[in-house]
Amino acid sequence: MLIHSATQLLTLTGGPQRGRDLGNLGLIENGAVLIRDEKIVAVGPTPELRAAHPDEPGLDATGSVVMPGFVDPHTHLIWGGDRAAEFEMKMGGMAYLDILASGGGILSTVHATRTASIESLIAQTRSRLLRMFATGTTTAEAKTGYGLQTATELRLLKALLALDDEGPLELAFTFLGAHAIAPEFKDDPQGYTDLVSQTMLPILREWWETHAPGRPLPFVDVFCENKAFDLAQARQILTQARSLGFPLKIHADEFDNLGGASLAVELGAASADHLVKTSEADIAALGSSDTVAVSLPCTPFGLAESEYTPAQKILDAGGILALATDLNPGTTWNESMQFVIALACRMLKLTPAQAIVASTINSAHAIRRADRVGSLEPGKQADLLILSVPDYRHLGYRYGTNLVKQVIKRGRVYSVDVGYYRTA
Amino acid sequence: MLIHSATQLLTLTGGPQRGRDLGNLGLIENGAVLIRDEKIVAVGPTPELRAAHPDEPGLDATGSVVMPGFVDPHTHLIWGGDRAAEFEMKMGGMAYLDILASGGGILSTVHATRTASIESLIAQTRSRLLRMFATGTTTAEAKTGYGLQTATELRLLKALLALDDEGPLELAFTFLGAHAIAPEFKDDPQGYTDLVSQTMLPILREWWETHAPGRPLPFVDVFCENKAFDLAQARQILTQARSLGFPLKIHADEFDNLGGASLAVELGAASADHLVKTSEADIAALGSSDTVAVSLPCTPFGLAESEYTPAQKILDAGGILALATDLNPGTTWNESMQFVIALACRMLKLTPAQAIVASTINSAHAIRRADRVGSLEPGKQADLLILSVPDYRHLGYRYGTNLVKQVIKRGRVYSVDVGYYRTA
Repeated sequence: MLIHSATQLLTLTGGPQRGRDLGNLGLIENGAVLIRDEKIVAVGPTPELRAAHPDEPGLDATGSVVMPGFVDPHTHLIWGGDRAAEFEMKMGGMAYLDILASGGGILSTVHATRTASIESLIAQTRSRLLRMFATGTTTAEAKTGYGLQTATELRLLKALLALDDEGPLELAFTFLGAHAIAPEFKDDPQGYTDLVSQTMLPILREWWETHAPGRPLPFVDVFCENKAFDLAQARQILTQARSLGFPLKIHADEFDNLGGASLAVELGAASADHLVKTSEADIAALGSSDTVAVSLPCTPFGLAESEYTPAQKILDAGGILALATDLNPGTTWNESMQFVIALACRMLKLTPAQAIVASTINSAHAIRRADRVGSLEPGKQADLLILSVPDYRHLGYRYGTNLVKQVIKRGRVYSVDVGYYRTA
Repeated sequence: MLIHSATQLLTLTGGPQRGRDLGNLGLIENGAVLIRDEKIVAVGPTPELRAAHPDEPGLDATGSVVMPGFVDPHTHLIWGGDRAAEFEMKMGGMAYLDILASGGGILSTVHATRTASIESLIAQTRSRLLRMFATGTTTAEAKTGYGLQTATELRLLKALLALDDEGPLELAFTFLGAHAIAPEFKDDPQGYTDLVSQTMLPILREWWETHAPGRPLPFVDVFCENKAFDLAQARQILTQARSLGFPLKIHADEFDNLGGASLAVELGAASADHLVKTSEADIAALGSSDTVAVSLPCTPFGLAESEYTPAQKILDAGGILALATDLNPGTTWNESMQFVIALACRMLKLTPAQAIVASTINSAHAIRRADRVGSLEPGKQADLLILSVPDYRHLGYRYGTNLVKQVIKRGRVYSVDVGYYRTA
């Protein structure tokens, strides 16, 4: 199949794009992409590719931007229940402790997740994957973390593996048993830390060989914040994970600066995520490392807070910046990377081009899938978007509705409906 | 047709909801709505309505919220061209004067609008109406204002009348010849003010009788801000409009407080809109009037500004608060009232229930259509939404994707596709 006549073809070739180099779209006007057997075979100007492949069936992208599918490198997309009532209480001005007392907060999601069947978890999560895919996310990271006990955490992984098999959205897996202190260890956070590092991780290692044979090991992630895991506990868990062969991620500096980003760099983590209260020293560490700095602007937005990732400082330091939704039931239930881009332009002061790079090739690096996704280059998976707009800058500029017209995943074309039809 | 078994039916009965009374949804669990001949005949619990109408064809709303269609009372939805390039310059840090010098700003839209054919304007606008309708707006106000010369302003009205005839989205019309000083009058704002009040308005009055016979007169609106129309000029235009029988609206306090809101109250305007820099005196005036205070939170959001309408003060003063998109190419290109609700919860500190009232029955009052739309009451138009969620609080809580499943306009059912399908 030859996708041709794209008004703008964004190739995102090369990368990751570091520091002030961020924003190179590799734009080809009147571009074309040749796809065979789920992969990209050639990319270039339409006249050139059409001349070389005169009989190839075509897909006309006139008037459209064609670009790589979004890679969302940080989500908590599997959970049970919802926290709509808690949102109303928060907006009504209720204090967080009162919300907790009335059954809100992360532990309400843990309870709903623990008591849900795997079938129910899969069904609830599938509805979110549908919204992600329809808004252009073709690959997403997916974390466990609402189980906080071995059996439930593994049930979440099992559900995620099944959803990945089902497709079309492709998942990268992360074990986040250290998302919060389990309620059973409320007064003994070190006890839960030991459970995660000494019991859960070895079990996970064996479980993975049986249940996901041949797949790369999942990431192991820790929520390094006050009232969750302190720096020593995060180090304990991540060091153990590394010794077992797991690649690493960290939640750092969402509310407090504990040094988690520098720890991520020290341990060679794939990414350090959130990065709001990040110190100059942590920014410098990120800037001279390959650990991707993943900003989650929907989280402060969702919480109506005014402080965001110091993205410009991270770019000044030479860091590799990526963007993600942080999709979760407590702070930000938004599936769309398009909205992340719109927010990043306004709150992180990125240009649309920079935000696009941070949502494709750089975010692919954050989940170590840049060999397969995140750009349009020969040999990579044919994961593409056809937008209903002729200029990439409509991403960011416009928000609130879906600008994706077609999603192509591993060479298969899916149409997204922007609109409605009369049924009665 | 009997829409039945709605998990939550929001009737929004009565209204407008003033001050601290804002937020009464008139919620009926397991609710039903009987529709005949484009109108609502009865509203109540499902068992009751089903017993009274056992043979009525049903539409099952199990698991869904059923509520009135959104009424968007402030849009500039008709224009030519776009300003995506300008957005990129702004996010890249370019100063406004440099953007103007490189051809940006409102006058670039005026140029693109003046040079567009009516067919092109209708086609461009139709694509936006589609997004509005698919995200649940069943009635919207639509302003002229990118012509700034008599012929183009009337061409815009003609296009809007044609789009309203085409449906299904229903429009309320506003003449905004006084949107900005026309470029020909750059150094003579009073000259343009005189042209609008003494020439355009009388011509409009006659034109309307010929081109829209039997329809209520459009609103006349003025942009009362520094560098646009000062308070005396706004008074001149609105007083003349009132003497010709036009209902009134005003843009006030987006950037500067000139007293426009109090002027609106004094002249009995249907609404005063924007209201960011509004003074205590203006808030007090609104609070004791029937002039609806229309907040446009997408405008500061779109511009990445941090100051929003002092909504809580307006409620404390007893004002009638409504919400709108302000859809326009310069400051906020967002068609979705769902996103307005999400933003209003976070930035104006409204509860989801308050934001819903401000987007339905109160916004219907802002365009003086509350006799026909904005609530589910016998005798009103059958303009309803069926949401894909079981609890109204998902509006506000969730954002970035479309929670509407079906839109019913004048009794006709339109399905909205949330999702995708494989085509190749």
